[in-house]
Amino acid sequence: MDEKPVYLGILGLGTVGSGAVKILQQSSADITQRTGRRLEIKKVLVRNPDKPRPVTLPKGVITTNPAEVLEDPEIDIIVEVMGGISPAKEHILQAIRSGKHVVTANKELIAKEGRELLTSATNAGVNLYFEGSVAGGIPIVKSLKECLAANMIRTVMGIINGTTNYILTAMTENGADFAQVLQEAQRMGYAETDPTNDVDGRDAAYKLAILASIAFGTRVRVDQIYTEGIRGITAEDIRYAGELGYVIKLLAAGKEHPGRGIEVRVQPAFVPRLHPLAAVGGVFNAVFVQGDAVGDMMFYGRGAGDLPTGSAVVADIMDIAKNLGGKVNPACSCYTDKPVIPLEETRSKYYVRTAVLDKPGVLAQIAGAFGEAGVSLSSVIQKGHGMQPVTLVFVTHEVKEGDLRRAIEKIRFLPVVDAVHNVIRVEEGR
Amino acid sequence: MDEKPVYLGILGLGTVGSGAVKILQQSSADITQRTGRRLEIKKVLVRNPDKPRPVTLPKGVITTNPAEVLEDPEIDIIVEVMGGISPAKEHILQAIRSGKHVVTANKELIAKEGRELLTSATNAGVNLYFEGSVAGGIPIVKSLKECLAANMIRTVMGIINGTTNYILTAMTENGADFAQVLQEAQRMGYAETDPTNDVDGRDAAYKLAILASIAFGTRVRVDQIYTEGIRGITAEDIRYAGELGYVIKLLAAGKEHPGRGIEVRVQPAFVPRLHPLAAVGGVFNAVFVQGDAVGDMMFYGRGAGDLPTGSAVVADIMDIAKNLGGKVNPACSCYTDKPVIPLEETRSKYYVRTAVLDKPGVLAQIAGAFGEAGVSLSSVIQKGHGMQPVTLVFVTHEVKEGDLRRAIEKIRFLPVVDAVHNVIRVEEGR
Repeated sequence: MDEKPVYLGILGLGTVGSGAVKILQQSSADITQRTGRRLEIKKVLVRNPDKPRPVTLPKGVITTNPAEVLEDPEIDIIVEVMGGISPAKEHILQAIRSGKHVVTANKELIAKEGRELLTSATNAGVNLYFEGSVAGGIPIVKSLKECLAANMIRTVMGIINGTTNYILTAMTENGADFAQVLQEAQRMGYAETDPTNDVDGRDAAYKLAILASIAFGTRVRVDQIYTEGIRGITAEDIRYAGELGYVIKLLAAGKEHPGRGIEVRVQPAFVPRLHPLAAVGGVFNAVFVQGDAVGDMMFYGRGAGDLPTGSAVVADIMDIAKNLGGKVNPACSCYTDKPVIPLEETRSKYYVRTAVLDKPGVLAQIAGAFGEAGVSLSSVIQKGHGMQPVTLVFVTHEVKEGDLRRAIEKIRFLPVVDAVHNVIRVEEGR
Repeated sequence: MDEKPVYLGILGLGTVGSGAVKILQQSSADITQRTGRRLEIKKVLVRNPDKPRPVTLPKGVITTNPAEVLEDPEIDIIVEVMGGISPAKEHILQAIRSGKHVVTANKELIAKEGRELLTSATNAGVNLYFEGSVAGGIPIVKSLKECLAANMIRTVMGIINGTTNYILTAMTENGADFAQVLQEAQRMGYAETDPTNDVDGRDAAYKLAILASIAFGTRVRVDQIYTEGIRGITAEDIRYAGELGYVIKLLAAGKEHPGRGIEVRVQPAFVPRLHPLAAVGGVFNAVFVQGDAVGDMMFYGRGAGDLPTGSAVVADIMDIAKNLGGKVNPACSCYTDKPVIPLEETRSKYYVRTAVLDKPGVLAQIAGAFGEAGVSLSSVIQKGHGMQPVTLVFVTHEVKEGDLRRAIEKIRFLPVVDAVHNVIRVEEGR
């Protein structure tokens, strides 16, 4: 064993930072055995040194001065767990320029600036690992990069936001409405006071940008991802989904259509009850992958939390420590440019929930409008006969989203139609 | 890019060998891009060169002479996919001695001789990878070794034999009996003509020996694993499991009880219907892992087949090719000796199905016998009132297996008891 420890400099001591420190401290002996090197936390950058923390560090380790961490020549690995774009990006670039390896769990930064950071790392001959940035403790980044490297990935589809999955699961189990469950989730700490980032799908879009970039060997920008949150999902939609044999999940989906391009979107979707993703409940995450050789795979686990995400960060640190002085992995896997297919050109089944007048000939009129736009129907449910309006729920066969949109625009303005309440993609999981 | 290709020598061209060759041929351009090196199959050892194969290789590649592969100084990586202990072991040892890296998918060999082979590899400074030896395309070996390296693993529990899972799934779906479903599985190619290895749990035991050795950082020998197959499971047991909220799976389970030792066993078990493993149907495999930091995780995918297992083999080859000339990973993770806890000392709930005389006082007698052995009951189902004998099904609270066995021995000889038909562990998944 090499006697000199591997020195770590940690930027940030929030949830993930504290989790990583806890693991490094508590499992120190095992980590040393497994890496063949002792890992020592030399400096930790915080904004407020007086804030009470769940971990205790030796005197002199905590600092508020970035230079004390970034310019310490002894530090081998910088661990960025502060979040946000600036100054995290500048700090990482400085670390890379000084020849330090970097581990980060910063999804927004990798999603938005990953290419620049990874290229800098490759040029400087250092590793930049980011397993903790997607799906917490689930080793999906390494699995896509290395374990499934012999595959052409066709589909990567995940439940990668715990807050929205908690909300949708509770809505499904209790028949409750979105607003009510969100409040409860906030009270329990599963949703933030400002839930926008989670509830509107942005957090999932960051992670999908990372996953799809790796899976398809291209670069997917966040602004290329169609992103829709779960605010529009009602208890009624969930009930109809159940009747039809589905559950509603916020799915982050990437698919490659060889020769045409890729499809990337975050949106609520119907998932068949027997699909492995359907059983992923509460705050759990899962990523479903289809490879040309391996077929269907799924990775399931905790997508957030101090220790789960901390364990991904520490695994990255251990990988680098074991390999210090060895070869550096090519960091960026953006080999080719693949166009993103516009949402209107993607194909799917759809669920459409309408409120219509209960009188003879209404179904014929609506079915006719679907038919004119080239949309054929696979099932219709009518509820509330004798009330005005009644609910009519349609499930279409697979159609082009653009054709569906055109049909909906016509139907919306039929005199017999009171409202088109919701249109949700039906994802058969292929 | 390095212009010289990485040369491969492949031992065996059966299912897995052909799968690996197919992938290397069909995805050649992408593999080159991702590894930064071209991979070239230089020699393939077969027993019968005239046998028709699903892959075509250039003239001169196929040979029946091991020396042509093992003694070729240009070959960098030997890929052993012939199976069995001998001569696979001797070939691998010779390759290691010549400084060649090795990839194998041979579960029996790694389970039985892994320590010797891995130690030789470490001493010779070469890598020996074996992802394909467990659970086909599921990257569980690397996940345990690297991705979850920051965790103390407490539980590793898998459905890692596709044949038995296919049989149990079919029995559950159709209410059919074991013998009938086995025949059908043989007809469809999901079970071999001699199904012993699968049906009696031996195949799963090989894989569990490998998984538990890695997960717990010790060496688990196959003969230390309590192994019981699925021949004793009847349609009736499956029906009662369903009534009680469970499904029956052949579980390969390893658990560490810190300070006491580990528990390793392959046996049919009741799994709660809401546990992630319960939904794993047909020939699919899954491995459920609990780590102290990461919590519950599950890996799901195809556990066998030419392309799924081939994809794991090729990923190992790519890992080695990318890192040729770099640092070698410490291969054996058997850091400490951990005792195996005797089955009698392990604790669980149990399902007990009996046939008894239908007369007053019988339940009291049997419950009394359980009680005397210190076994308390959580539920009782009686079926077939008015017939002789009737079925009485018991589920116990958590007890020591030894206490349960003692209770069963007493009950078996009560005059009112016709037979104790089955005793099955109830695995709550913790």
